[in-house]
Amino acid sequence: MKIIGKVSDCTFIAEKLRRGGVTIGFVPTMGFLHQGHLSLIRMAKKQCDRVIVSIFVNPTQFGPDEDFKKYPRDIKRDTALAEKEGADFIFHPTAKEMYGRGHRTVVVVKELGNIMCGKYRPGHFEGVATVVLKLLNITRANRVYFGEKDYQQMVIIKKMVSDLNVDVKVVSAPTIREKDGLAMSSRNRYLTKKERENAVILYRCLNLANEMIKGGKRNLAQIQKEILGELNRNEFLKKVDYFEFRDPENLEEKSRVESSDRRILAAVAAWFGDTRLIDNMVIKL
Amino acid sequence: MKIIGKVSDCTFIAEKLRRGGVTIGFVPTMGFLHQGHLSLIRMAKKQCDRVIVSIFVNPTQFGPDEDFKKYPRDIKRDTALAEKEGADFIFHPTAKEMYGRGHRTVVVVKELGNIMCGKYRPGHFEGVATVVLKLLNITRANRVYFGEKDYQQMVIIKKMVSDLNVDVKVVSAPTIREKDGLAMSSRNRYLTKKERENAVILYRCLNLANEMIKGGKRNLAQIQKEILGELNRNEFLKKVDYFEFRDPENLEEKSRVESSDRRILAAVAAWFGDTRLIDNMVIKL
Repeated sequence: MKIIGKVSDCTFIAEKLRRGGVTIGFVPTMGFLHQGHLSLIRMAKKQCDRVIVSIFVNPTQFGPDEDFKKYPRDIKRDTALAEKEGADFIFHPTAKEMYGRGHRTVVVVKELGNIMCGKYRPGHFEGVATVVLKLLNITRANRVYFGEKDYQQMVIIKKMVSDLNVDVKVVSAPTIREKDGLAMSSRNRYLTKKERENAVILYRCLNLANEMIKGGKRNLAQIQKEILGELNRNEFLKKVDYFEFRDPENLEEKSRVESSDRRILAAVAAWFGDTRLIDNMVIKL
Repeated sequence: MKIIGKVSDCTFIAEKLRRGGVTIGFVPTMGFLHQGHLSLIRMAKKQCDRVIVSIFVNPTQFGPDEDFKKYPRDIKRDTALAEKEGADFIFHPTAKEMYGRGHRTVVVVKELGNIMCGKYRPGHFEGVATVVLKLLNITRANRVYFGEKDYQQMVIIKKMVSDLNVDVKVVSAPTIREKDGLAMSSRNRYLTKKERENAVILYRCLNLANEMIKGGKRNLAQIQKEILGELNRNEFLKKVDYFEFRDPENLEEKSRVESSDRRILAAVAAWFGDTRLIDNMVIKL
């Protein structure tokens, strides 16, 4: 496995592969890899000739008061894990290498970037869309892999790729969970023991919504109200940013289950201490 | 020569060429081709194996009160002209084909898009950057050609390509002028006979600035003032949007010639009746 730090080196290697007819699978990450990331690398390895994993804690997708500085980093551990899963290249640039020359261009996916997490993290999805487009161009990816845990991100990237006619297939993979159901996230390591124990409430509430809808309830606004009550009763949960029902394709908000609905997205974001966690579930009718 | 209307057809053809090691030169236009466009096609033909010319009057770069509807269109004439210069493909999509699926993504080159023409045409350069990025992805261009007449556009596209790591070389070519010096533009056909005769004042003022600077004047704010006076005295010139001096690389405004300056951009935009014309000159010291 080769570790690449320079944009030009990555492009050179990737372009040579593409010209030789070799397919490139790309897994963009911010590092501190967990089983969710590794499942994406395995999927890429199965579907493509070569796999590039990027490890880049992208400053432009963090707000000024967010956890950019303390975001966990361990490149040695990440490299070993990615290699074990068959990654061929790690692209690990510095922020200067990515944005060093007076970067001024941003990619904005209107509307989709301002709702849900975008409402609470202004500019976040601009940062995400921009860095992903850069990385797709740098890695010449044929296929790019995203976890469904960051569901809104996946929808936004798919829309960007389609709108801008980017020549890449966006592949998504199911959320990987801890034994008790908590969605895996590099941010889980911030949690105290008590917060960690209580964080599973996010998954439990998604399941509760699933059961209520499958049980025949159609008033989503009412379910939302009940579940928000449930969440707010947990003493380790500091604040709920949102618990919402959305259309899984276009993320439009839903207050009722309609007879034409086949799938409904339930999505939640909440704080445990200083740690913001998200989770979601696509409920199939 | 082949005329292509579908995005997927263009991508399919272009991708096949690229895989075969064939280089693609791309000339984006809004049609109604003049000698300026044809010089770009000739240049592309010399430098690349195949040439794609796009003809697309892009609605998203026109303001609500601008000339989108009346912008001159003549696809038959354009096709014949492009073929004569050796173009291999004309890409001529409809707006629905380009933006039909609820398009939501825009590319913003911050700061550079809000000055000069951007100040008077809000959203214009977002529309330009977005459609150019789409077209670059659709045509898989190795090299893309822009006229220096739209100088700010060229700088913005170069910045976007660099910032987003797009795999294309941006090539610019000198402005082509009528015999009296008026920069060629599809919009010149809007002018009445009298307006057309007087429109050459834009070029004359750029030359005047050139002479003043080469003659040793260093106070650009003073030169600007004199030239604005000159322009405003012309009875067929309805309104000057701007006459400015800028750094030709980063478009920063300049009020003095500094001893380190090697090149200075003089740029002008003004209205003759209902027609907005622009011109510019890079003054070499």
